Amino acid sequence: MPQVDIERIESDIVAISRFGFNEADRGVYRQGFSEADMAARQWLRDRFEELGMEHRMDGAGNVIGRFGPADKPAVLIASHMDSVPASGIFDGVLGVVAGLEVVRALKDAEIIPDFPIEVIGTSEEEGRFGGMLGAQAMTGKLTREWLDTAKDEHGFALKDAMSIAGLDPYAALHAYRRPDEIHAFLELHVEQGPVLDLEKTTIGVVEGISGVFKWNCRLIGKADHAGTAPMHMRADALMGMADFAHEIGRIIDEHGTDKSRITIGHVACKPGFPHTVPGEVDFTIVGRDLDEGVMTALAEACERVLSSIARKHKLRFEYEQMSWLKPAYCDDGLITMMSAKAEELGLSHKTMPSGAGHDVQFFCEHTRAGLIFVPSVGGVSHAPDEWTHWSDIERGTQLLLECVMELACEQKDLAPAGQTAKSH
Amino acid sequence: MPQVDIERIESDIVAISRFGFNEADRGVYRQGFSEADMAARQWLRDRFEELGMEHRMDGAGNVIGRFGPADKPAVLIASHMDSVPASGIFDGVLGVVAGLEVVRALKDAEIIPDFPIEVIGTSEEEGRFGGMLGAQAMTGKLTREWLDTAKDEHGFALKDAMSIAGLDPYAALHAYRRPDEIHAFLELHVEQGPVLDLEKTTIGVVEGISGVFKWNCRLIGKADHAGTAPMHMRADALMGMADFAHEIGRIIDEHGTDKSRITIGHVACKPGFPHTVPGEVDFTIVGRDLDEGVMTALAEACERVLSSIARKHKLRFEYEQMSWLKPAYCDDGLITMMSAKAEELGLSHKTMPSGAGHDVQFFCEHTRAGLIFVPSVGGVSHAPDEWTHWSDIERGTQLLLECVMELACEQKDLAPAGQTAKSH
Repeated sequence: MPQVDIERIESDIVAISRFGFNEADRGVYRQGFSEADMAARQWLRDRFEELGMEHRMDGAGNVIGRFGPADKPAVLIASHMDSVPASGIFDGVLGVVAGLEVVRALKDAEIIPDFPIEVIGTSEEEGRFGGMLGAQAMTGKLTREWLDTAKDEHGFALKDAMSIAGLDPYAALHAYRRPDEIHAFLELHVEQGPVLDLEKTTIGVVEGISGVFKWNCRLIGKADHAGTAPMHMRADALMGMADFAHEIGRIIDEHGTDKSRITIGHVACKPGFPHTVPGEVDFTIVGRDLDEGVMTALAEACERVLSSIARKHKLRFEYEQMSWLKPAYCDDGLITMMSAKAEELGLSHKTMPSGAGHDVQFFCEHTRAGLIFVPSVGGVSHAPDEWTHWSDIERGTQLLLECVMELACEQKDLAPAGQTAKSH
Repeated sequence: MPQVDIERIESDIVAISRFGFNEADRGVYRQGFSEADMAARQWLRDRFEELGMEHRMDGAGNVIGRFGPADKPAVLIASHMDSVPASGIFDGVLGVVAGLEVVRALKDAEIIPDFPIEVIGTSEEEGRFGGMLGAQAMTGKLTREWLDTAKDEHGFALKDAMSIAGLDPYAALHAYRRPDEIHAFLELHVEQGPVLDLEKTTIGVVEGISGVFKWNCRLIGKADHAGTAPMHMRADALMGMADFAHEIGRIIDEHGTDKSRITIGHVACKPGFPHTVPGEVDFTIVGRDLDEGVMTALAEACERVLSSIARKHKLRFEYEQMSWLKPAYCDDGLITMMSAKAEELGLSHKTMPSGAGHDVQFFCEHTRAGLIFVPSVGGVSHAPDEWTHWSDIERGTQLLLECVMELACEQKDLAPAGQTAKSH
């Protein structure tokens, strides 16, 4: 059995971290279509070239290296090359380098796969212009309207950023990959959460990507002098928000699952003066679950509880649903295979949802798709001190290699692509 | 019995409202020592002159008109001439105009009081440079250090503002009035709260000014991805704040009184992103009661509850006490007299605390002092739409007149000044 080489993996991850590295905060700044991002993509093409792989950059900026026969659907190993500002060195990059290492290990063992393997560094996953642009282009979700209108937080247009990067924006619409070109889609990523690390588990086999809804909420009462307004004569918007926050645990107990999350991340009191009763509070609710029916039950409970609390506190409650993204499910066959392979390798493993979005989610409805997590120390993510132990990276990559071989080198009892993608 | 004339009162209040009136928002902008403020003070001196009263401006900018014998302690009728930005027309001004009207009504009835009456428009009550400057100067609380260091929110120095207004800043230290110069201190003010209006009561006889403490609080947990961090693995600072807010009612029920207030007016989540669990929340607590022992019990309960909640949510709790102002008590003899006079006049009345600060509070420990409230429609205060019905102003002023006559024209069974100021 071929083995991955952690020294090569470490060397590659460190090499890519230099594109956009900022000495001051030791963070990586490799936002989509930036100079650093495009340089990292060229670095990846150079590696493909060294390995004798066919390679290209598609119209969306995805960098694709191919190894194996030309006439069959490919096993795609993909993750993103871009980063958030002040990122760590593993997020995204790990999945690309692991793909490279899979090809190197096969070559070392002189194994030619029966199905081709494509290693893909996807583009603009992290959201400078909305996120997962490369994955959406490959799965046919990208639109002309998005290309025409997307801007980054500084108002800089996506089209201009792509042009400066040497890309023809509308060529991104040619990046689409038909399902019959794809044998399977695999991604290896750091968990970005605390579960594996806290539970001392090496491998997370991801069941699916939680669906998510985001609400902008407003409770409107009456601003009063904090001295002259007796407690029972107030319409204190903040007390309404607090009473709702206090009920979140109960809402999840009654309507959710252990995969449910409800978060209030942003709160703004108006007028926001210490000596004034808040007459208005704006806040966000972000809810998640792996089951859309549960999401609906959570959302309905939030609305009911907020309406009831608003009546009790003499407030008006308004909300706007900013987004509602359905859950996406990984392929059951791949989940079973990944778990079995982890077991064979003697790795502790668990099935779990992903609360964060990943490129894989667009492939879930497009082909059979699977996602492997390795632990994030302390759950730290999107920060310079993000870390994953090299030994976990080695084991995760070895698992990926063995899954790829199962899919590309032997056609055992896995169902053909396109027939096992399912919704729960 | 002499009677006040509401037409004269209305005419004066409207006249003063023109100093600093802003057509755009119909608010009054007459901040302390501004050109508009000094012009209003000159207007008041012109009215004193018309009435044949002795008048002067002391070193702190207080404008003082005196009527009656020269050799006896005076009944002071005082309130402030300055305003917050975008104020209504009654706040402060009412008490000054009511004093003028008391003198006019006595003159109309050809009554010369046995004790002199001083009508005083106090300076910088509203806090451009810290607040209640005139009252503090008269009661000996003003310091050179304050005069030397105070600045407004734009960084403009108090000393410069006073110089531009034609005042020698250090002359403010000569504004001190010895207790033996004062027979009593009376103030008439709008309630600035909803109680009288909601309870359809005409007169509030104020027992005292609530003490107040202000805390800057911080709960520190851990910022996490709102999708990847399971609910039970979070250290969500906002949930800690919300749990505390939820307990405020219980804290007051168990440790407070119907005069207690606890307010969270300002909340800031860090990082404050919808998709991130708040790792830190800064918020303010402002607590009030009329009894300092109760204030202490409330503060101790807040600390205990926050410490317990912090442990439960895996948070660190820190706070800094920014201020602790003791309650100030009005004179029991005056409270009894005001209530009796209101009863004689057939006015509905109640004793109540003042949750807002007033000039009177510095006179509470200095002499015998009393404060009368008239209703604020809807409790609105410090806003252009502040309103008090003219009929309530007429009745409040008539009550003030009769109290002044009781104090200045007949020496009945009231104890001499300086002996009845008490603490509860």
